[in-house]
Amino acid sequence: MSDMPKSVHINEEGPREGFQIESGPIPTARKIEFIEALSGTGLKQIQIVSFVNPKRVPGMADAEDVVRGFRPRPGIKYTGLWLNEKGFERARATGKLALEGKISIYASEKFSMRNNNRTTVQEFEYARRVLDQYKEHGIPVERGSIASAFGCNFQGDIPTSTVLDILRRIFEIAEENAIKLTEISLADTMAWATPLSIKRTVGAIRGKYPDIRINLHLHDTRGMGIANAYAALEMGVDMFDACVAGLGGCPFAGHKGAAGNVCTEDLVFMCHEMGIETGTDLDRLLECARLAEDIVGHPLPGSVKFGGSLGKLRAAAR
Amino acid sequence: MSDMPKSVHINEEGPREGFQIESGPIPTARKIEFIEALSGTGLKQIQIVSFVNPKRVPGMADAEDVVRGFRPRPGIKYTGLWLNEKGFERARATGKLALEGKISIYASEKFSMRNNNRTTVQEFEYARRVLDQYKEHGIPVERGSIASAFGCNFQGDIPTSTVLDILRRIFEIAEENAIKLTEISLADTMAWATPLSIKRTVGAIRGKYPDIRINLHLHDTRGMGIANAYAALEMGVDMFDACVAGLGGCPFAGHKGAAGNVCTEDLVFMCHEMGIETGTDLDRLLECARLAEDIVGHPLPGSVKFGGSLGKLRAAAR
Repeated sequence: MSDMPKSVHINEEGPREGFQIESGPIPTARKIEFIEALSGTGLKQIQIVSFVNPKRVPGMADAEDVVRGFRPRPGIKYTGLWLNEKGFERARATGKLALEGKISIYASEKFSMRNNNRTTVQEFEYARRVLDQYKEHGIPVERGSIASAFGCNFQGDIPTSTVLDILRRIFEIAEENAIKLTEISLADTMAWATPLSIKRTVGAIRGKYPDIRINLHLHDTRGMGIANAYAALEMGVDMFDACVAGLGGCPFAGHKGAAGNVCTEDLVFMCHEMGIETGTDLDRLLECARLAEDIVGHPLPGSVKFGGSLGKLRAAAR
Repeated sequence: MSDMPKSVHINEEGPREGFQIESGPIPTARKIEFIEALSGTGLKQIQIVSFVNPKRVPGMADAEDVVRGFRPRPGIKYTGLWLNEKGFERARATGKLALEGKISIYASEKFSMRNNNRTTVQEFEYARRVLDQYKEHGIPVERGSIASAFGCNFQGDIPTSTVLDILRRIFEIAEENAIKLTEISLADTMAWATPLSIKRTVGAIRGKYPDIRINLHLHDTRGMGIANAYAALEMGVDMFDACVAGLGGCPFAGHKGAAGNVCTEDLVFMCHEMGIETGTDLDRLLECARLAEDIVGHPLPGSVKFGGSLGKLRAAAR
């Protein structure tokens, strides 16, 4: 337990991950209401939209309107997701988002073929072109990102050696471009990870790249989200993507009715109860979780919003 | 991770924990159908009813009928729960259940006062009388059991020192009665535990009583169930109570709409994926989870029944 971090950084992705998968339509004003409520919780980073093909992801067709409409709060980094040049141009055109480049590769070639029609070799060629584009526009690149890093519904288990191999090639193209990567993000896109595979993969990466900060993007589809986060904390991971109320899920992963991302307020509850700071207010996050349920119009998976936090019970018991 | 067990024993409590909390009424025949389905999953121990006051727990008023009606499968230990002499007599009268005594104490005196109107000192006096009764009827006693061992909605946090103190007194009255306890069960009755407090408490007990087998009874009310089970596995714990589909919850804990017990099939999924045997068939457990939802008539919290297991995906990916 000696490796547990003193504090963790949470990148809230509820507005993006959550609203892109809902059948909706969710009014733009309610999306903005949710983003502004999240802005009052102490979260320092919020991904609010994705710039993707509205035919494939109709729930994000109003991305520009959302960005235009919300009132940013100083000190919070608001970001958007893009998957190609067109999406990047749309994000850039808003003039209102923190633009950060990354080198993104799928660990699963089959998932890459399905989603992008590119082999892994072609993914790396594409990543080079994207880096040129970032250079042209002065976009900083500090992160390497590996999707489906623990397993894939189409390709099966992803061995740690595959992750390490992809990571090596990510660092190669970073070096070719005089980029110094400081962060690696691993996404358990289809919820194949267990606490053991989290420890194995994170441990292997730390062994090779001891100075790199590791971010985890966890899904809770098979109920392992919080346990996986705990295993990561034990390995010293101090950076997580999460979604209030457990919003979200990947619209292309082939799940139906499955739980979404690891739940922000459940993660925060665990951290705070274990003495790990998050800089967030759990009660306000719980209010946001209830707001999210009101907005999507159905129950969402997070647990602490039902079970309740312990602060008031503790105070009453004294 | 070196302490992880090679196999774990699961005591299924879905029929008891689950059906006692449902507003129901659930027909006796459906309870029996569920117990018999569970009997085909490889589970070796199933708690099927509680013998409690039907005025307080109307869902268990048909306990005798359930026990009379189900067909036991050889090699499975079927048990019932009782909380007082009257319940014990009812369990004994069925002539069909494995009767095992235990020395049960609440770590929370306030919860004990609410539920049993007894102080902790009175709880120990009562436990002595119960042991006399077990002796009279030749009931074996091998387990000490501590409820609300990690925290209590009415009393607040339970320090490890309180658990150790109660444990010491449990061993004292065992010794007075020439009983050799081999197991200690810790119940997180109201879901206050975190992976860290699991490790702290289990570690403290192991330090004092290295030869005692530890059982955990975990609730998932605040979403920590599987993470807590993982932390326990890391401490070498190899015995868990669990409920298919996450059925259950304590009717007196003061929660509403909260998740129930740690979910059997999610726990089994995690164990199998990490190479830990359970002796159970995950697909059959998933069928039982869906049957449980059909019987109670509403969705239940377990995740793998939505997200799906990985066996078929792995086979298809090959």
